[in-house]
Amino acid sequence: MQSSLSKEIQHKIDHKTKPVGALGKLEKLAFQVASVQNTLTPELTKPHIIIFAASHGIASSGVSAYPSEVTPQMVLNFINGGAAINVFTKQHGINLWLVDAGVDYDFDQNERLIHAKISHGTRNFLKEAAMTKEECENCLLKGAELVRKVQDTGCNVIGFGEMGIGNTSSASLIMSKLLNIPLEDCVGKGSGLNDAQVIHKMSVLNKALEKHSDVDDDPLKVLQTFGGYEIAMMCGAMLEAAKLKMIVLVDGFIASVSFLCALKMNSSVQDYAVFCHQSNEKGHQLLVQKLGVDPVLKMDMRLGEGTGCALAYPILQSAVFFFTEMASFESAGVSQKAEL
Amino acid sequence: MQSSLSKEIQHKIDHKTKPVGALGKLEKLAFQVASVQNTLTPELTKPHIIIFAASHGIASSGVSAYPSEVTPQMVLNFINGGAAINVFTKQHGINLWLVDAGVDYDFDQNERLIHAKISHGTRNFLKEAAMTKEECENCLLKGAELVRKVQDTGCNVIGFGEMGIGNTSSASLIMSKLLNIPLEDCVGKGSGLNDAQVIHKMSVLNKALEKHSDVDDDPLKVLQTFGGYEIAMMCGAMLEAAKLKMIVLVDGFIASVSFLCALKMNSSVQDYAVFCHQSNEKGHQLLVQKLGVDPVLKMDMRLGEGTGCALAYPILQSAVFFFTEMASFESAGVSQKAEL
Repeated sequence: MQSSLSKEIQHKIDHKTKPVGALGKLEKLAFQVASVQNTLTPELTKPHIIIFAASHGIASSGVSAYPSEVTPQMVLNFINGGAAINVFTKQHGINLWLVDAGVDYDFDQNERLIHAKISHGTRNFLKEAAMTKEECENCLLKGAELVRKVQDTGCNVIGFGEMGIGNTSSASLIMSKLLNIPLEDCVGKGSGLNDAQVIHKMSVLNKALEKHSDVDDDPLKVLQTFGGYEIAMMCGAMLEAAKLKMIVLVDGFIASVSFLCALKMNSSVQDYAVFCHQSNEKGHQLLVQKLGVDPVLKMDMRLGEGTGCALAYPILQSAVFFFTEMASFESAGVSQKAEL
Repeated sequence: MQSSLSKEIQHKIDHKTKPVGALGKLEKLAFQVASVQNTLTPELTKPHIIIFAASHGIASSGVSAYPSEVTPQMVLNFINGGAAINVFTKQHGINLWLVDAGVDYDFDQNERLIHAKISHGTRNFLKEAAMTKEECENCLLKGAELVRKVQDTGCNVIGFGEMGIGNTSSASLIMSKLLNIPLEDCVGKGSGLNDAQVIHKMSVLNKALEKHSDVDDDPLKVLQTFGGYEIAMMCGAMLEAAKLKMIVLVDGFIASVSFLCALKMNSSVQDYAVFCHQSNEKGHQLLVQKLGVDPVLKMDMRLGEGTGCALAYPILQSAVFFFTEMASFESAGVSQKAEL
């Protein structure tokens, strides 16, 4: 990003017909998008959200409020257009791609579902690593490949969602390992555990940490160990989207953990990321704090699917539109602030 | 609102294909809209935002960062489509009505500007009440009349914005009087005062409080004394919109003070109000706390014009759409949470 362009972008923002800074977070978003696109006339084109779905071995250990079969059932719900993310992407004209990253179900062939199945679900990390190294690398590659296909459609802004019963367990362990934060600060109620169930989840995840105490903070190794095919595939997708200079919409807790993995692999990904929603899941508040980011929305949601990305998208559009369409003080003949 | 319908609304929300409560604030918004419309199939029709503009006598006492002529200049900017609110209402298909509530300028006749001029600006409340009682009552009536005209177009959701250099001074005094809160907790930087200028503003407003120490907390008297034609007209508009069972979008600090006046006149207005944006203006955080409300957005904006309403509108739409369009667990064949 050129320093002279940065000055021009800020000048353009400051000379719109409004007090300096009066559009708050919208001004920061406009600055970011213009910087990423390296232009004074940015635009968002062909927005997409990709949902990665996968099954988790750990789900059989009683860490989630919902049974594991909900993962394929929700994929079918996505295909049929009945889920929250279907409603919100339709509302905003966002293209939705559905990816089977490794669901424990054999779906009929369907033009709405992209087959990228690594296996029928990760292994239970209480017993062994969730993935092999090859599987994990394969996830990263497939995620990247999908993003290239999305970009080929003319898209320059992409969000990511996930579906995977058990995946807050993976995400909490990855966050704890990569940021060296006590596990208890990273573990929450997921899709709706009660207090006793959270205690059980904690004890299960503590055993997993002990089992894999030899794993250090190497992001690939951590991803491989605690898994989530969808988490790893999203990580690969985010890295590629940043490489292609696309705006990356980061959803809630799971997606932020994918982002954390990506960040540890390539720190430049942060320039492209827009954090869309502060989730109600316990670990997320601490995670965004550690990442030093301020999500666009705080809607008390905890759903995943990329719903936060879809809801934040019109706000990002507003940022681009004020930047490109508002009059300046000069063009509108409006008096500026008195000099002091 | 019928209690049996309330139960049906909540049942419908809880049986959508998502964990109970997982859509957070969207669920509360859906509940509110369905309750107001008294139906399980709510919809938002012909959304409108009305901007009330007015000049303020107090503006000549150095309480604002911008000169008073910015008020008519910005009205012309609204007419010409160059302001932030033009951009955001265009983005979301919201109809924008512009109202001259009492600007110190004689506008050429223009089909985009509605003439409701009470006078060429309020009196300076350092010397006398900002309005006569008749003027204030006239504002309430004109606001109500405009809302009836908007409703005649088929609109059931209406937001309000304002433009008036000096109007944070009016708003701070009204808030302080009606809630019996120390003035200093209600006074902020407005459109961009520096610290020394805020101190000057405080001392001016303290003098106004002393001057009118005989005014008690009667909302009409307080409105009349500290004015703002736009604040009073918006108050009348909100009261009428609630009476007509429309959803009322409340913007930032000034609009929330109009709402406070309306609330003191008729407490049922609160059932219809959606607080759209937590402003960065100092008094607003305390005001929403006292009102016991939680605005949809916190974008660090401080612009007025109804910009918060426009930005929050797609979120409100999302709430209605998930409620009316998402599949239920039963219809989608998704397993529910295990019974405990």
